[in-house]
Amino acid sequence: MAGTDSTRELVQRPGPAIILVEAQLGENIGAAARAMANFGLWDLRLVNPRDGWPNEKAVASAAKAHHVIDGVRVFDRLEDAVSDLSFVLATTARKRELTKQVFGPDDAAKQLKGHIDGGRSAGLLFGRERWGLNNDEIALCDALVTLPVEPAFASLNIAQAVLVLSYEWRRASDVPELLFDSNIKPPASKEQLVGLFEHIEGELDESGFFKTEEKRPTVVQNLRTMLSRATFSEQEVRTMRGVVASLTRRHTRVNPSRSQSKQDKS
Amino acid sequence: MAGTDSTRELVQRPGPAIILVEAQLGENIGAAARAMANFGLWDLRLVNPRDGWPNEKAVASAAKAHHVIDGVRVFDRLEDAVSDLSFVLATTARKRELTKQVFGPDDAAKQLKGHIDGGRSAGLLFGRERWGLNNDEIALCDALVTLPVEPAFASLNIAQAVLVLSYEWRRASDVPELLFDSNIKPPASKEQLVGLFEHIEGELDESGFFKTEEKRPTVVQNLRTMLSRATFSEQEVRTMRGVVASLTRRHTRVNPSRSQSKQDKS
Repeated sequence: MAGTDSTRELVQRPGPAIILVEAQLGENIGAAARAMANFGLWDLRLVNPRDGWPNEKAVASAAKAHHVIDGVRVFDRLEDAVSDLSFVLATTARKRELTKQVFGPDDAAKQLKGHIDGGRSAGLLFGRERWGLNNDEIALCDALVTLPVEPAFASLNIAQAVLVLSYEWRRASDVPELLFDSNIKPPASKEQLVGLFEHIEGELDESGFFKTEEKRPTVVQNLRTMLSRATFSEQEVRTMRGVVASLTRRHTRVNPSRSQSKQDKS
Repeated sequence: MAGTDSTRELVQRPGPAIILVEAQLGENIGAAARAMANFGLWDLRLVNPRDGWPNEKAVASAAKAHHVIDGVRVFDRLEDAVSDLSFVLATTARKRELTKQVFGPDDAAKQLKGHIDGGRSAGLLFGRERWGLNNDEIALCDALVTLPVEPAFASLNIAQAVLVLSYEWRRASDVPELLFDSNIKPPASKEQLVGLFEHIEGELDESGFFKTEEKRPTVVQNLRTMLSRATFSEQEVRTMRGVVASLTRRHTRVNPSRSQSKQDKS
């Protein structure tokens, strides 16, 4: 989805750190960086990335999330990567024997927000592509996050997992600002709308649309009901009147010489 | 995140179709398929994929989402890809001039659920990696979806966009059913709606409504947008076609002896 507004300045607001443990593919690190940037996160930490750092493939797949890639910090040990954080959630798709609270992504984001709003720092831990996090790593964390995936197809790409959590963070942090609102225009006045209806109905009277006088009121009600649902603006009422006028003039235009008197009606 | 439970059987429950318009990279198609599978979606449709179909890279990045990849359907025209659907949302990161309602992902999922619970079919439209959807494509849709992305970094990978919507679909489909407004009739399929549009536009071509060829596409977009908002039922589409036929026949009826050949057109 294209749509970056290059006139808007990037603001780095407080948010959770994203910590990737022994990520294997540079592409995934880059895609995670991009997902973070999409939803306003910027603090990316890597524990022992398999292919070292910097990583060209990560840069390529980060799609200009330079501020995230440039700020990456690399650690040998998970303990060091989380040392400054006071609340860390571990993402996992597998049930663990360890006794930890488990949140869905939305509640996880609210927990993170509670901590960060209180001036504390927090993080989200993601495991290896192939087998996730081990129990030692999980044990360092305060609670677990799991995603509401299909049990028979639960293997979520790591960048996708980062995305869902980043998205939920964005939703939890203030009211998420959509980039634009519905641009529904003010509706036309009922007077204008009735003018359109009467125009159409008058033309339909002329063309013999209403089979009998008895049926006419019901058919008119149905027509008015269905067209009212579109909530036409003033401009749209004018467009519709133009359409009706054009349709009824059609045969006039085909034979301009014969039809002066008929044009007067439309 | 590892964790698929291979003892669980895959169940294909009703859900929205995912429609990718002119996707460029097989990797993205595959990643979208995987994201769909993660959250229980399975109906993937491609409109003119750049590298054709089947696509080896798509299969590789789908990570065993075989049931999605094997079920892919490919179409030449968007109109055909959505013809059996009665409610379609277009994802976009850019504000449009077209007058459409805009939803965030959560509300979009609730809308989809309302339709699908009512036994109707629905879909989500995603545009090209580089520049999204054009206005003709948007005009075919009932409303827009946009994600609460960072304005200064709004460019979301297409598979990531599919993921967020699939995730929200999953969340919405577990919450108590939204009751569909009881006296609104099921909307017509897009095929029926496009039939109506083409009927009106054909008649307007004949009547000289479009002042210039250059203006025609914009005027058509506006007409389709405003009429789509009414969410016509099948019966209402038939009524509208009757109205258009009657209006264009008007002069024919006034002079029945002269107009046999013109009636054929209406």
